[in-house]
Amino acid sequence: MRTALCDTLGIQYPIFGFTPSQHVAAAISRAGGLGVLGCVRFNDPEELDEVLDWMDANTDGKPYGVDIVMPAKIPTEGTQVDLAKLIPDEHRAFVERTLHELGVPELPEDTEERAGVLGWLHSVARSHVEVALKHPIKLIANALGSPPKDVIDQAHAHGVPVAALAGKAEHAVRHVDNGVDFVVAQGYEAGGHTGEIGSMVLLPEIVDAVGDRAPVLAAGGIGSGRQAAAALALGASGVWMGSYWLATEEYLNTMPASAAMQTALVRASSSDTVRTRIYTGKPARLLRTKWTEAWAKPDAPQPLPMPLQNLLVTPAHNRLHETNDPDLVSMPAGQIIGRIKGIRPVAEIMAELVEGYEQTLARLDKTR
Amino acid sequence: MRTALCDTLGIQYPIFGFTPSQHVAAAISRAGGLGVLGCVRFNDPEELDEVLDWMDANTDGKPYGVDIVMPAKIPTEGTQVDLAKLIPDEHRAFVERTLHELGVPELPEDTEERAGVLGWLHSVARSHVEVALKHPIKLIANALGSPPKDVIDQAHAHGVPVAALAGKAEHAVRHVDNGVDFVVAQGYEAGGHTGEIGSMVLLPEIVDAVGDRAPVLAAGGIGSGRQAAAALALGASGVWMGSYWLATEEYLNTMPASAAMQTALVRASSSDTVRTRIYTGKPARLLRTKWTEAWAKPDAPQPLPMPLQNLLVTPAHNRLHETNDPDLVSMPAGQIIGRIKGIRPVAEIMAELVEGYEQTLARLDKTR
Repeated sequence: MRTALCDTLGIQYPIFGFTPSQHVAAAISRAGGLGVLGCVRFNDPEELDEVLDWMDANTDGKPYGVDIVMPAKIPTEGTQVDLAKLIPDEHRAFVERTLHELGVPELPEDTEERAGVLGWLHSVARSHVEVALKHPIKLIANALGSPPKDVIDQAHAHGVPVAALAGKAEHAVRHVDNGVDFVVAQGYEAGGHTGEIGSMVLLPEIVDAVGDRAPVLAAGGIGSGRQAAAALALGASGVWMGSYWLATEEYLNTMPASAAMQTALVRASSSDTVRTRIYTGKPARLLRTKWTEAWAKPDAPQPLPMPLQNLLVTPAHNRLHETNDPDLVSMPAGQIIGRIKGIRPVAEIMAELVEGYEQTLARLDKTR
Repeated sequence: MRTALCDTLGIQYPIFGFTPSQHVAAAISRAGGLGVLGCVRFNDPEELDEVLDWMDANTDGKPYGVDIVMPAKIPTEGTQVDLAKLIPDEHRAFVERTLHELGVPELPEDTEERAGVLGWLHSVARSHVEVALKHPIKLIANALGSPPKDVIDQAHAHGVPVAALAGKAEHAVRHVDNGVDFVVAQGYEAGGHTGEIGSMVLLPEIVDAVGDRAPVLAAGGIGSGRQAAAALALGASGVWMGSYWLATEEYLNTMPASAAMQTALVRASSSDTVRTRIYTGKPARLLRTKWTEAWAKPDAPQPLPMPLQNLLVTPAHNRLHETNDPDLVSMPAGQIIGRIKGIRPVAEIMAELVEGYEQTLARLDKTR
């Protein structure tokens, strides 16, 4: 399994693994793919710096990248306290009522409340870029499309290519016009922020729209060698996987309290996700739980715009997380989770992908 | 492009073309695929009989099939007049108000009002099966899953295999348990009745679930050789296409007043469809028009269950159709319509699919 992108980035397989876990990202890179570390959880740039130091020490010199969340348009900015004033009482009351109805206890008084995720803020995302560029990263990906031009220029000045997620062909063309080097075509099936066009239709549409100007990676619905082969058949130069790495042994090294989430993923079918604005304010696919179901009821308020919705729900997510209840997990996840049958090491998944890819090509040979 | 299914059915390419047009179906069969004639529009079994006589005379002895719409559970039955009494006044008023607001005129007084489509009724679908089995058909497909066991037995007694559409792996397994011979895995991208799982995820899931018990055809998002190759990479034994054949020259031979619909398809992007219950009462993907937008507004009533919704909207569809306005077409269509750039002969599309398939395999060869 090899495309021109492998030479461009110095990787063995065109398999890109997005993950908030440095342990998973490093394992993907060591296994021949490109681990891409999600930065949005780092409110403190120094913490990101330390984690990237760890990556540098644990990737055996293999390439890795980072993923930021930076809207092209600069959204409402301000301190967490300023922003909190913009959240309506109705929304706070709904969250409290829902948590009460779900039997979710308050956090113990001595718990240090984790801050809302400020990584959605432009200023914080910019600090992620600045920190990351001090490390030997090989890719900056932006989950919300093109970053501003000066950020792209800054990356290019360091010799680092920029990738941008796109859910429509017209967005992909705009990203390339803005100077983005790779497009990640994110189909409806995908976890996290995603559009309405299925991968089968979206991928060749984006490949045709950007032509030779940029390689395209396929995101959404990839968890096997067959799906990787389908993505390359559709014209992708590589595959971008996210949800599938949540069910790895390495993930627990970074997030030791994630066993309930992993249990939920293992038992979920492909029907157990929902695309909703309740996580960030923009449509994102999440694991379907009692929490997402509560927001789907007629009495639920409309989600707030980014970044307010995330500030609203983060304290609730912390409380849900502490229950260790698979029914109450709050987690972005794609439809591919139906394929997850257990918790495995990253290297095993990578080997299976590559072997499955080769078997698929051998099977297709017989159709000529 | 060849799979074991080609030998089973005596076709050159494992390309299945669902269409309400006998001219299109015959052209697909003549070009080496399997044309599958949609029967739901035939309220009168004798009319279907005549059309199948025409098929027999115009397919050069090549195999063809038929598609029926038969719920596994027998729904509300009755004459059209009985059923009409079950439609609430609120719904009739909404339809009238909407047509008025869209500037859709009444039909001229001398117009013979076309009946609501009774093909949704069990009794009518059964008459389709009986008529079809008098012809040398090679496949009966059911758009709503497994037909009742006696219908499957009846087909098998005539040596005719039965295919059933499925939008979830568990449904596919049930169909095969019921005696269905082929499963059509219908992804979220597809036009008409469709589920929520994207083709990239659904297809291998269904292939794995039914194993060696039944070949699986891929429906949803197929309009190019690349997409056909992706489907076969995912494990399909063939592809099932519907929307793409609407934009053919042959379609106009059967439905001469469809130029506005074809204009709408040519200009539509992959974002210009919507999945809604307004066509039949079950979720189906339609071309997005001013009509579908009206039903999406907050003041619109909830669609009625099958078969009432279709009886409610069919007179409206007739009036919309007479406007010859691409903005007012009512037509099931999948996301693949974004790829339609013009009106072409069926044979040209078939040749492009096969050539594109071979080119894709040649391209994949270079990734080893």
